[in-house]
Amino acid sequence: MPLVRIDLPATTSSIEAAAVSRAVHQALVDLFSVPQDDLFHVVARRAPGELVCSPSYVGIEHSDKVAFVQIVCSPGRTVGLKEALYARIAADVEAGTGFRADDVIINLVETARENWSFGAGLAHYAVADRQRPAGRPGS
Amino acid sequence: MPLVRIDLPATTSSIEAAAVSRAVHQALVDLFSVPQDDLFHVVARRAPGELVCSPSYVGIEHSDKVAFVQIVCSPGRTVGLKEALYARIAADVEAGTGFRADDVIINLVETARENWSFGAGLAHYAVADRQRPAGRPGS
Amino acid sequence: MPLVRIDLPATTSSIEAAAVSRAVHQALVDLFSVPQDDLFHVVARRAPGELVCSPSYVGIEHSDKVAFVQIVCSPGRTVGLKEALYARIAADVEAGTGFRADDVIINLVETARENWSFGAGLAHYAVADRQRPAGRPGS
Repeated sequence: MPLVRIDLPATTSSIEAAAVSRAVHQALVDLFSVPQDDLFHVVARRAPGELVCSPSYVGIEHSDKVAFVQIVCSPGRTVGLKEALYARIAADVEAGTGFRADDVIINLVETARENWSFGAGLAHYAVADRQRPAGRPGS
Repeated sequence: MPLVRIDLPATTSSIEAAAVSRAVHQALVDLFSVPQDDLFHVVARRAPGELVCSPSYVGIEHSDKVAFVQIVCSPGRTVGLKEALYARIAADVEAGTGFRADDVIINLVETARENWSFGAGLAHYAVADRQRPAGRPGS
Repeated sequence: MPLVRIDLPATTSSIEAAAVSRAVHQALVDLFSVPQDDLFHVVARRAPGELVCSPSYVGIEHSDKVAFVQIVCSPGRTVGLKEALYARIAADVEAGTGFRADDVIINLVETARENWSFGAGLAHYAVADRQRPAGRPGS
């Protein structure tokens, strides 16, 4: 994985929602070494009142057009890599959609590699780790 | 953060849904020392069959009017503080809405402080922790 | 708990969505020793474009009819038990619904036993663990 949940305002078009999803995925591919075909997103559009966001926090102003991006992924990335990921997602979402970088809220939740099945009831990373003990950290 | 996901029955009014959200936030502010402007909630209303809840578990009876409250936050709170948070959320939701305290289901998921960006692609807590190694636990 | 989030295509019938939920729950009961009445699911049906899934990953082909199953539960299960859970969920979802086993994507997120309240503002497992230090791992 990652499994990514993206929550956007109801006024977001399908095209723009897809562009947010693509930007998040490409950042994960480029910075977290997530395979290109390791793509599992839930993109929801929320009516007014459903997406509750502070108008301002830690010096960042938020508009009504905010994007919440919650990424459940495997552990092991450095703080520096996480910082690079946030910067890249915010920049690319701003560049490719009508969302401002300031309005991109990101949260990572890390969970063990054995905690994933990508279909057929197999624990793909657990199996890979048994076969290749010094394998790649995976996604 | 926290990033809070609140799932309520479809029959909940907007006003009542907002009251649940406010009660959860104020409890986090008062008990978990979350800043007042650190507010990021997704409030969803679910059709019948979408919100599946046991009629009874560990001696608590649940009606059809249940509230699921999932709070992703930074780690470090004591068990006692978590217990105080649950008690406060349940009491205040019951006091301020039509939900019974027994119908407030709460789950915390803790994730590292470096796992948050509140906009502009910055890892706000990671930066703060570098600048102030003995800083506040944050939210 | 667990608290389970199941995301399915919008074309899934209510009956089929309920069957997926039941299959996931029964697997948790049988393999993770989750009590039968420890049932808390959010089942969402998603419009096209909202459920973004790779057509193929780690050798598994995915159709448009995918099921994302995210299970937040207590820690402590062995890798072998997790593998048995994935296999059982995939097999039973395929047997009882129109979903293929290959299209069942599963993710576990583990969170401390003190991180749950099942109503009335009580931290049920924290209380149980104080009273019975060598108690069952719980759900």
